[in-house]
Amino acid sequence: MQWTALLAFVSLVVSPAVGQTFQRLGTCPTLGCVFPPDQTDFLSGQLFDIRLEVHAPVNGSEAAHRGVPDEKFSFCIQQGKGSCVDAAKYFKVSQPHLEKWSFSYYEDLFAEEAKQSTVVNVASKAYRALSLTDPGTYTAKLKYYGNTETVATWTVRTPNKKRKAKNVLLFIGDGMTQPMITAARLIAHKSINGKYQSLMQLDQMDNLGHQMTHSIDSFITDSANSATALYTGKKSSVNALNVYADSSKNSFDDPKVETIAELFRRIYGGPLGIVSTAYIADATPAALCAHTRDRGQYPAVVFEYLNSAEALNSTLKWPTGCQQPDVIFGGGAEQFIAGSGSPNGTDYYKAFEKKGYNVVYSNSQLQRTSTNQKTLGIFSVSNMAKWVDRHVYPENLKNQKNSPTGDGSDALDQPGLKDMTLKAIDILHARSKSKNTGWFMMSEAASIDKMMHVLDYDRALGELLELDDTVRATIKHLKDIGEYDDTLIVITADHGHGFDVFGGADTKYLAAQTDDRKKRSAIGVYINSGLSGYTVAADSKPNNNTIIYGTEGPNFPVTWNPRYAYAAGFGANPDHREGYTINTKGPRVPATTQSGEQRVNPVDQPQGGTIPVDESQGVHSLQDVSVFANGPGADAFRGVYNSVDIFFKLADALALGGAKPSNNDNDHDNHNNGHW
Amino acid sequence: MQWTALLAFVSLVVSPAVGQTFQRLGTCPTLGCVFPPDQTDFLSGQLFDIRLEVHAPVNGSEAAHRGVPDEKFSFCIQQGKGSCVDAAKYFKVSQPHLEKWSFSYYEDLFAEEAKQSTVVNVASKAYRALSLTDPGTYTAKLKYYGNTETVATWTVRTPNKKRKAKNVLLFIGDGMTQPMITAARLIAHKSINGKYQSLMQLDQMDNLGHQMTHSIDSFITDSANSATALYTGKKSSVNALNVYADSSKNSFDDPKVETIAELFRRIYGGPLGIVSTAYIADATPAALCAHTRDRGQYPAVVFEYLNSAEALNSTLKWPTGCQQPDVIFGGGAEQFIAGSGSPNGTDYYKAFEKKGYNVVYSNSQLQRTSTNQKTLGIFSVSNMAKWVDRHVYPENLKNQKNSPTGDGSDALDQPGLKDMTLKAIDILHARSKSKNTGWFMMSEAASIDKMMHVLDYDRALGELLELDDTVRATIKHLKDIGEYDDTLIVITADHGHGFDVFGGADTKYLAAQTDDRKKRSAIGVYINSGLSGYTVAADSKPNNNTIIYGTEGPNFPVTWNPRYAYAAGFGANPDHREGYTINTKGPRVPATTQSGEQRVNPVDQPQGGTIPVDESQGVHSLQDVSVFANGPGADAFRGVYNSVDIFFKLADALALGGAKPSNNDNDHDNHNNGHW
Repeated sequence: MQWTALLAFVSLVVSPAVGQTFQRLGTCPTLGCVFPPDQTDFLSGQLFDIRLEVHAPVNGSEAAHRGVPDEKFSFCIQQGKGSCVDAAKYFKVSQPHLEKWSFSYYEDLFAEEAKQSTVVNVASKAYRALSLTDPGTYTAKLKYYGNTETVATWTVRTPNKKRKAKNVLLFIGDGMTQPMITAARLIAHKSINGKYQSLMQLDQMDNLGHQMTHSIDSFITDSANSATALYTGKKSSVNALNVYADSSKNSFDDPKVETIAELFRRIYGGPLGIVSTAYIADATPAALCAHTRDRGQYPAVVFEYLNSAEALNSTLKWPTGCQQPDVIFGGGAEQFIAGSGSPNGTDYYKAFEKKGYNVVYSNSQLQRTSTNQKTLGIFSVSNMAKWVDRHVYPENLKNQKNSPTGDGSDALDQPGLKDMTLKAIDILHARSKSKNTGWFMMSEAASIDKMMHVLDYDRALGELLELDDTVRATIKHLKDIGEYDDTLIVITADHGHGFDVFGGADTKYLAAQTDDRKKRSAIGVYINSGLSGYTVAADSKPNNNTIIYGTEGPNFPVTWNPRYAYAAGFGANPDHREGYTINTKGPRVPATTQSGEQRVNPVDQPQGGTIPVDESQGVHSLQDVSVFANGPGADAFRGVYNSVDIFFKLADALALGGAKPSNNDNDHDNHNNGHW
Repeated sequence: MQWTALLAFVSLVVSPAVGQTFQRLGTCPTLGCVFPPDQTDFLSGQLFDIRLEVHAPVNGSEAAHRGVPDEKFSFCIQQGKGSCVDAAKYFKVSQPHLEKWSFSYYEDLFAEEAKQSTVVNVASKAYRALSLTDPGTYTAKLKYYGNTETVATWTVRTPNKKRKAKNVLLFIGDGMTQPMITAARLIAHKSINGKYQSLMQLDQMDNLGHQMTHSIDSFITDSANSATALYTGKKSSVNALNVYADSSKNSFDDPKVETIAELFRRIYGGPLGIVSTAYIADATPAALCAHTRDRGQYPAVVFEYLNSAEALNSTLKWPTGCQQPDVIFGGGAEQFIAGSGSPNGTDYYKAFEKKGYNVVYSNSQLQRTSTNQKTLGIFSVSNMAKWVDRHVYPENLKNQKNSPTGDGSDALDQPGLKDMTLKAIDILHARSKSKNTGWFMMSEAASIDKMMHVLDYDRALGELLELDDTVRATIKHLKDIGEYDDTLIVITADHGHGFDVFGGADTKYLAAQTDDRKKRSAIGVYINSGLSGYTVAADSKPNNNTIIYGTEGPNFPVTWNPRYAYAAGFGANPDHREGYTINTKGPRVPATTQSGEQRVNPVDQPQGGTIPVDESQGVHSLQDVSVFANGPGADAFRGVYNSVDIFFKLADALALGGAKPSNNDNDHDNHNNGHW
C-alpha cells in the first residue's frame, strides 16, 4: 500500500528551529549540520540515515554568504585512525541528490514580538538505511564554505554476543518520579510507627538505577524524544519519533534510527507486544515503530504499525520495521474508525483483520480471545479510563460516548493495565513457543503523566499503583508459566513532573473557611502533616469493598477521600515573586512579615511569573527518574546513567548487536541462528 | 560539671501532642503508651530508655476514667515465646518511681480556633539505660485500666560480627533530593548533544539506594528526627534528638536511644569527627551526641559535646556519650562566646581548651593547626558563608559582624566544606594511628537545605556542588594517605524539598516586561527550555577565573547569571486553586481559556491555598532521597529501604552490634578487642 491520500494529513508547517528560547536548529549550532550529530553511540549493525545540511541565514545575527548555501559541500567517514573516505564510497551507495529548501525562525522573544523572523536557505543531502558494525570510533566530517568543517564523533559500542534474556518486558510509567512513588506508597501501604507493613513491588525489585532524561537540544524532554532515547539509544528533539529533527518541512524525511522493536523483529523475528493506557498512536507506544519529526501524525503512526516506514514513502529506503506487532492493546479508536483520524479515512479495524488480526473491543472479549493469533485490542476513543474511575467512581465512565466501535455508546467494559499486560504475555508466549524466539513487550502506564499534567494527583497515583500492581502480578504470572527466570523486567519512566507532597490538609477545616488566606491554615507541615488517612477506613464505608488490603497486594487506598489528605502540588511556597536570576546581594528572603502575616517581600526578585499564560497544564520537569529491574541482564541497570544507555542495556541482554543490515543478514552468526 | 544554671534555658512549654493536624501524642494512639513503641528494631547491645505513660483525658472526644489515670499499671517483657517477666526483674533494675503530670492539646483546628483545649492527666514510669543483646523478637506489654493492653513488638537484629570498614565517613546533604542533583549537574557539567562530558562524583559512586524519610508520627520530617533515624535506627518525632517524644514538660527526660557515634566511642574508643556548614548545635550535627525532645536547646547540645547527657542530669543514668569528639568544625559561635547562647553563660571556647582542644577561628588557622590534638573550629556566628558568596560574590561576606571571636568584625576567612572535611580526615587519621581503631566522621552540607527553604535555588545548588567536590576530593585524599580501601563512604540526605526544574527563563525578556502575566511568557518549556547557559562563558568575564572546568573536577558553573537561566521552583503550575480533595466527578481541569488566556478554572477545586500564611519559607517534602556509597560494606546500601536501616548498615560495617552495656563490657569479645 502506498502512502498517497494520507499526505493530506502531513503537517506542512513544522517549526524546526526553536530552542533556547528559539534555536536555528537545536542539534546544529554551526552552519553545517551532520545528523546523527557529534557524540552519537550506535549499536553494532543498527540501521540509521544520515542527513547533511548547509545553512545560509539571509538576515539576523548569523547572516552570512549572502543567503546562498554552499551546494558543493563534501562529506567523508574516517574509521579509527584511517583516512577519511567519501561517505557514498564508504557505505557503497550512490551519491544522494541535492535537496534545497528554506525555513524561518525567531532569534528570541523580542524578535517574535516584533515579528522579525530570520530566514535560512538550506542545501542538503541524505543517505538512507546505513549501518556500522565494527566496534570503535568513527569521525564524520562535513566540509563546506571552503575549509569550514563540522566534525561528528560516532562510537559503535562493543556488543554483547551472548544472549542473557529470552524475553524482555519494559514497563514505562509515563512521567513517573520517585516523589510520586513515595506518595503512592504513603496512600496505599499501611505504616505503624514509621515502618511500612508492606512495600511497593517497585521497592522490592533487585536492581535500582537512575537515568537522565534531558533532550538532545533542550533540558526538558517530551515523551516522544525520551521514548526515542530509551528505544534507540539516541537523544533527539521534542516531538520527534526515532528521527533526528532536520529543518525541512516534511515531517517524514528526517533521518531515521532503528528501534529496539525493529531490531528484535529483524534479527529474531520474535513476537512483539505494545500495550498502553493511552490512545495507541500516542508517543510512548508509537516510538517503538514510527519514524516522524511530528508525533502528532497519528494516522501515519497506525499505518506504520500495520505496514512500514518504507511503505509510507517508497522513495526512502528503510528495510526494517515492526512488521505487524503481535499484540497492540490500548485506546485511540479514532485512528481505527473510518474517518478523519484514520489512515486514508478507511476502516482500520478491517485493515488489521485483513492482515490476520483478532480485533477485540472490551475486557470481556479480551479475556475470551484466543492466544494464538495476532491481536488488536482497542478499548475506547482517546485515552482509556483511569483506575480511580473504573474502581471507585464508575459513574464517571457513563455519558462518555467513547465506545471503540464508534457507535456512540459508552466504553464501560475497559480492561486495566494489568488485564492487558497479562493477556499480552499469554499471546506472546503462545506465539513464540514454536520458534523459541522469546518475545519483547512494552507496557505503558500512560495516565500517570496525563493526570499529573492536569494536577489531578489522586488519579495519577491511582495509575501508578495500578502499574505497581501490574508488575507484581506479572512476576507471579511469569513464574506460573515458567518464564520468569528467562525474562528481563525493567520499569522506568521517560521524564518527570515537579510533583511532591509537602504536608497534610484538613479538608474539613479548609472547606469551612471563606477567606483565601485563612484556608491555608488548613495545611499541616512537618509534625502537623500527620499520618496517612488513606490506609484506614473512613467513618463511611470504604469506596470499594473489593480492594484487598494486605502485604501480598494489590495495595490501593482504602479511602480516597479522607478528612486528613496529603497536601501536594507542583509547588509549596509562601507568597513570593520569581525572577530566575541569582540574588547577587546575598541569600534570598522571599517573604517578610507584613501586618502579622508573611507576604511577598517587596524587595525580593523584581520580576514575577511562572509558566506562560497560554499553558493550561503543568509541564515536565528535569529530575532523573528511577529504573528498577529484575531478571537476566538486570544488574546492568544499577547506578546512574543516561537514558540512551537503557537501549544498549536492553540490546545487550538480547544480544541484538553485531548483526549486518538485512541485505547481508547471512552474516549474523552470533546468536544461534536467532533462537533462544 | 552539673547542669544547674543551664536549666534556665530549658523550655517549659513544649507542645508534646500535635500531629494530624493535632495528635494527643503521636506515637501513642491508645491511652497506654510504650516507648520504644511497637515495631522498634534494636542493634544488639544498643542502650535505650523505656518510658511508660497511662493517659486519662479529662475532656474532649477521648474523655475517660473521670480524668484519673491508672497508677497501678504493670509492664512486662516477653523474650520470644517465653513468659512475660516484670520489666524491672527482666532487666535486673529497681522499680522506677511513679511520675505524674498533665498536658493539654487541641483536637483539631476548629478546637484551636475556639480555644477549647483538651486536658490529659498522666501516670508514668521510666527505666534508664537498658539494652537487649540476644537477637530475636521481644514483646513488651503494658497493662492498665484493668485488662487493657498496649503491646509493642521489638526486634533485636542479628548483628554482623566481622568488621568490614575501618573508617566510616557519612556525608549528609541536608534536604538534598535527586531533582536537585539533576539541576546541579545541568549547571556545572558541559553537555554536547545530550551527552554529559563529565559527571558528578555522586553519579559515579559504586552503589545507589533510596531511603524513606518520614517521621514516626507524621509523614513530613524535620532534620532532627531524620538524623535520629540515620544515627540510631529509630524513627522519632519532629524536633526530637535521639529520644522518643513523651508528654512531659521537661525536654530532657524523654526516653533516650544510643547513637552510632556513642556506640563507636563506647566500643572502640576511636576518634570521632563532626563537620557542618551550619551552626554546630544545629540538628544534623547535634544528633550525633545530644538527647533532647527540643532541638532548640542549643547550649545543652554544646554542653553534651564536651560532657555527656548524664552530666546534664545526674539523676538519669546514661553511661555512654560522644566523649569529646576529636573534631568539631562548623559555625555557631553564639554557643561559645560567653553570653545568653552559651552553656551557663560561660566562655565555652575556654571550656574546650581546658579539656585539651586546639581552638581555631579561620581557614588559615585551620590549615596550619596540628593534626595531633582534639580540635574545635568555629568559623562564624550562625551558619557559615555559602559557596556562591565565598567564591562569586565575596563582597557579601562584609558587614556581617559575624566573626567567631565575637569581636564584631567580619568572618572573611571561612573554610568551605572541602577544607574542613580534608583537615578533619587528617586529624582523625593521625589520632587513630597508635590505637588502630579507625575513625567515624559525619560531614554535613547544611545549606542545601537552608537555601532551599528561602527558595534561593542558586545558592542551594552551589552548596550541593561543593558537597560533590568535597566527596571527589575526599576519595582522592583517602587514596593518597592509603585509607581509601578501608573507608566506607556514604552520601545521603535527611529529607527533601519539592524542588524541580521545569524550563528555561529568558531573564532579559522577563526583566523588560511590566505586566505580571506577560512576564510568564519569558519561561520556555519543553523544547523552549533550551540548553544550560551556565557552562559557557557569558559575554562578560566569568564570575570567577579560578574555577576550573573539566572532567576531573571541580565542576561549578562558569557563569551563574546567564541570560537563559533555568526556571525552577517549588512549583510549576498554571493559575489554579487547590483543595486537596479528590475530584469525584472525573479528571481535573485546573485552568480554562478566559479572554484568550488560561486562568483558574472557576469550577475547579472549590477551595484555595498552599501553606499557612504564618510560614515564611518553603517546607520539606516527602520524596525518598538517594543514597550513594563506596567502600567496604557499601553494597549493603543498594536498593530501597527505610531511613532507619542506614544505621544498621553502618553499624554492621563497623560490627558495632553484640556489645554488652558498658558495665559488662568485658563480654564484648567479637571485634578483636575493639581494634582494626
